[in-house]
Amino acid sequence: MKCTVHASKNFVIGTADKRLFSSFVEQLGRCVYGGIYEKDHPLADEDGLRTDVLNLVKELDVPMVRFPGGNYVSNHRWEDSVGPVEERPMRLDLAWKALDPNQFGIKEFMDWCQKVGTEPMMALNLGTRGIDEAKDLVEYCNHPGGTALSELRKSHGSEAPYDIRMWCLGNEMDGPWQVGHKTAEEYGRLASEVGKALKLFDPSLELVACGSSNSDMPTFPAWEETVLDHTWDIADYLSLHMYFRNDENDAETFLASSKKMDEFIETIVHVCDYVKTKKRSKKTMYLSFDEWNVWFHSNEQDKAEPDWKVGKHILEDVYTFEDALVVGCLLNSLLKHCDRVKVACLAQLVNVIAPIMTEDGGPSWAQTIYWPFYYASKYGRGGEVLDIRLNVPSMKTISMERYHMQMQCLCTMRKNRNLICSW
Amino acid sequence: MKCTVHASKNFVIGTADKRLFSSFVEQLGRCVYGGIYEKDHPLADEDGLRTDVLNLVKELDVPMVRFPGGNYVSNHRWEDSVGPVEERPMRLDLAWKALDPNQFGIKEFMDWCQKVGTEPMMALNLGTRGIDEAKDLVEYCNHPGGTALSELRKSHGSEAPYDIRMWCLGNEMDGPWQVGHKTAEEYGRLASEVGKALKLFDPSLELVACGSSNSDMPTFPAWEETVLDHTWDIADYLSLHMYFRNDENDAETFLASSKKMDEFIETIVHVCDYVKTKKRSKKTMYLSFDEWNVWFHSNEQDKAEPDWKVGKHILEDVYTFEDALVVGCLLNSLLKHCDRVKVACLAQLVNVIAPIMTEDGGPSWAQTIYWPFYYASKYGRGGEVLDIRLNVPSMKTISMERYHMQMQCLCTMRKNRNLICSW
Amino acid sequence: MKCTVHASKNFVIGTADKRLFSSFVEQLGRCVYGGIYEKDHPLADEDGLRTDVLNLVKELDVPMVRFPGGNYVSNHRWEDSVGPVEERPMRLDLAWKALDPNQFGIKEFMDWCQKVGTEPMMALNLGTRGIDEAKDLVEYCNHPGGTALSELRKSHGSEAPYDIRMWCLGNEMDGPWQVGHKTAEEYGRLASEVGKALKLFDPSLELVACGSSNSDMPTFPAWEETVLDHTWDIADYLSLHMYFRNDENDAETFLASSKKMDEFIETIVHVCDYVKTKKRSKKTMYLSFDEWNVWFHSNEQDKAEPDWKVGKHILEDVYTFEDALVVGCLLNSLLKHCDRVKVACLAQLVNVIAPIMTEDGGPSWAQTIYWPFYYASKYGRGGEVLDIRLNVPSMKTISMERYHMQMQCLCTMRKNRNLICSW
Repeated sequence: MKCTVHASKNFVIGTADKRLFSSFVEQLGRCVYGGIYEKDHPLADEDGLRTDVLNLVKELDVPMVRFPGGNYVSNHRWEDSVGPVEERPMRLDLAWKALDPNQFGIKEFMDWCQKVGTEPMMALNLGTRGIDEAKDLVEYCNHPGGTALSELRKSHGSEAPYDIRMWCLGNEMDGPWQVGHKTAEEYGRLASEVGKALKLFDPSLELVACGSSNSDMPTFPAWEETVLDHTWDIADYLSLHMYFRNDENDAETFLASSKKMDEFIETIVHVCDYVKTKKRSKKTMYLSFDEWNVWFHSNEQDKAEPDWKVGKHILEDVYTFEDALVVGCLLNSLLKHCDRVKVACLAQLVNVIAPIMTEDGGPSWAQTIYWPFYYASKYGRGGEVLDIRLNVPSMKTISMERYHMQMQCLCTMRKNRNLICSW
Repeated sequence: MKCTVHASKNFVIGTADKRLFSSFVEQLGRCVYGGIYEKDHPLADEDGLRTDVLNLVKELDVPMVRFPGGNYVSNHRWEDSVGPVEERPMRLDLAWKALDPNQFGIKEFMDWCQKVGTEPMMALNLGTRGIDEAKDLVEYCNHPGGTALSELRKSHGSEAPYDIRMWCLGNEMDGPWQVGHKTAEEYGRLASEVGKALKLFDPSLELVACGSSNSDMPTFPAWEETVLDHTWDIADYLSLHMYFRNDENDAETFLASSKKMDEFIETIVHVCDYVKTKKRSKKTMYLSFDEWNVWFHSNEQDKAEPDWKVGKHILEDVYTFEDALVVGCLLNSLLKHCDRVKVACLAQLVNVIAPIMTEDGGPSWAQTIYWPFYYASKYGRGGEVLDIRLNVPSMKTISMERYHMQMQCLCTMRKNRNLICSW
Repeated sequence: MKCTVHASKNFVIGTADKRLFSSFVEQLGRCVYGGIYEKDHPLADEDGLRTDVLNLVKELDVPMVRFPGGNYVSNHRWEDSVGPVEERPMRLDLAWKALDPNQFGIKEFMDWCQKVGTEPMMALNLGTRGIDEAKDLVEYCNHPGGTALSELRKSHGSEAPYDIRMWCLGNEMDGPWQVGHKTAEEYGRLASEVGKALKLFDPSLELVACGSSNSDMPTFPAWEETVLDHTWDIADYLSLHMYFRNDENDAETFLASSKKMDEFIETIVHVCDYVKTKKRSKKTMYLSFDEWNVWFHSNEQDKAEPDWKVGKHILEDVYTFEDALVVGCLLNSLLKHCDRVKVACLAQLVNVIAPIMTEDGGPSWAQTIYWPFYYASKYGRGGEVLDIRLNVPSMKTISMERYHMQMQCLCTMRKNRNLICSW
């Protein structure tokens, strides 16, 4: 197969924000308990953090990590996850039908962020809660001192404010599976009022409004329009989520996954710019692709896992070489849209559809998908992405019949005067 | 008057669910305080339960009892009614303008259920509260242990979970009198999200969505359609309420009350099946007629009762023989719709429009309506109801001019190979 | 300039309710802290109240004072402002980006009311809160005793109930700046349900529904119609707010301000009566003009004031003689509509766009606008306002070009058989 690549250093799409290589730690399965945190593990440090996992994360050098959910956040009370660990309540997490011991809470996460050298991206519960609770959490985290809640944080051992810059206004609120799911109108109104309150607290906070959970949602893309209509003034980013599967065991279609991601991003850019025009606005809405990955291997085995336990063995996809190729293509898709996509989170970081796997009490290791992410992150961040043209044989995929696909998962960028190509 | 009854053992409507003979204990008037519970009564047992009332209830053998409201529940905080009795707060109940001492709370009700041999049907406050509080209550009641709220229940003296199977998603939410009244759209959305959360906790819970408070509501039957549209997936039953009066002192119309009940049930069945068709669903929506009775005798005298006291003497209808006939006809109406009506609650059990009456500190007795209920319950439950045809002279009633009524309050059923007729 | 006034004692508009001369104390800037309350001031009494300010307020003889907001109330939790002063939390007030020490709370305000001889007009937070919290506050304030919340008030040192008669259902809920801003539909529904709960507690409470924040709001006057449609049965008054500016330094237009107030009032009267007709109602909706004044002098200097401190020096307009003339005209406008406007609050009382100014630790004094208010209040209350006709040369103002204005700010009233004229 012969392939010709046309590139020019003058045809630049944009600069790849380092936050494109972010990840996600949800209170789900063994991402936290038995993943990044395992008190009784021989390699745990004084905070109960597994140092082997810590090192794998550090090597991956993720600039930002989303926390604590995900679906989890929509039925979580942040107050449960602060203060003396031994006084924190055991809760039921309805999202994943698990026990939630709240042992690894906000302080523990912030300490972990510091150890691995990453920034937090904190999600707010807009499923069952509203303005007051969001305002309280932000004040608890970010206000220097002198108020009841900032002094409470200090009394919990964090003298300096966490200064969390990026906040998600809920998670996948368009999904009927979400606890406290909202219609676009309901969510738009709520996010707008919560966002306004947070910007009154600190106008420099960066807020992410919920877009569609994937492009197959029946409400996509009307959801985006309605939500942006309400949140235009307070949102800095609109979120996108998408997971990819190879159910039919059809390699050609699966390898063309990034084409679907391209389309999703581009459609949403159009909706954003449509609303921008309608509002006669000068503001550009940026995108936060804050959940993406391959996810399907574990679906069947998850059904056997009993409910209401801590650290359920669920979503533990074991990835193949094929998956790694797809992840590579998806990274290229993100890079090629770096003029609008400023944040992207590989979901998730450890054990739960993750590049890093562990055994309870045992070893940890990097999965196949660890490596494309590692190299894209290492060489991609900060580079100028070039708008290339490919001359390649096209191929028709089985399940996505409407496309005459081209294997366009090539991305070319220019960094320190060198051209870098990735497939 | 000659009457011919045509029946055939092959024309069966359905089997009468025993829960058709359920009742209702609301925190209203003297249903609880001075009714089933009166600590200083000479016949009170160690729990303050009046044993004379207990015996009358036991004889009635009600399979299920709805609690704690009614209108009451829409401004009640369940947390007020658990824990050490002496620490429970005195509250104002806006629904009945009464003092609410919270002395007879969830544990006391559950203990009472066990003593009289009945099952609870617990109502949730969807007037002033939402998902979080509903989820908390269900967890408190039903989760075996190991979480903050289930351990709290244990610490309150109930080691075993209450395992309450049936939950009402609010009460009469279509009624403008209701604290936190909702539009059909508002209620449908809220009930849908609360119901979803409860089913995430336990998919086997049985949930009742609020239908219309009676067939004269201006929003009936559009209310039903909108609510079912939202709650179809999570609701197992739709509720109906209806009370009957003889204001004009017109015996013929009053005795034809069951005709109105028939129509109400049948219209709602049609709405249910319309939504079923619209949704291309295979699910049959069942009905819970969870408030019904004759109620009008006490209306005038209630106005004289002062507000803000415990155990107000209100809704204390003294029933006549005529009322008993009507109650008998209504029971027949319920039986004749036993293919769809699976639950029905005579409202209420003691003192408040009730089959059982007491005097504070004095005796208790069965009212006239006790007996038709007693016999219907005793002989009706579990039987197969036959679809009979009557040949009787019709009569025209005064106030319900549109009907050419037939006294069709006959119900015939087949049980243990015997035919049983009731009028 | 020759001016002829035609008046007749038989052409009476109405009697001037004394509450037309009410004022407003918001937890804003130095209205409370450094204004009416300054513990360390040499003239402070045993309660920390500045006696010099107390005397100026007493002289003004305001019959009612609105409290505690304003925008402030929409993010305030009333529980924070009761109980032992030293245990009250320091909060962030998002509305004014200030620290809120909650040292001057409900009890302190009620004690102050008694000292200055005025009645409270209490505002409820309908920005971030709902039925339960409103009901709790009203019970805390007004219930004599015997319930958890009324006993809590007693334990806080107020044995007798405060018996607050007038309650504002939120503040400026149409304003996008408001924490928890609502659409007309959202607010109408919420106010209707909160109001209903309060009337269940005490049907004699007087409730004020939020009208438009000013006549330039894009939702005016549709807001009024929708809100009244929902709240007709529970609202006794509809609120109006309006502030006047002389940005263009154009005296003629500025002096014609009361013309704008006239139009605002009259339009809203029309909307009220339209809804009345639509509802076939016999009830007359009255108006509460509960925020009005000249406000523009301090706008620029306010931007320099740092955030998150107690007693910010903001909204400290220093008033001119011209402003006093406008305030006089505005008072006449209120008087001329006394058949419908029953309450009006000069916003605010001390330091914040106020007739009374203080220096921290220093003196206090009456501003120019103090005097027209003083004389109108002293001579206007209780008088019969006459419907006069003026024959004066008209003048055309610059910025309000659509009017051929007449200087109609004359008001004539009859009191104790004497005619009183005010300009």
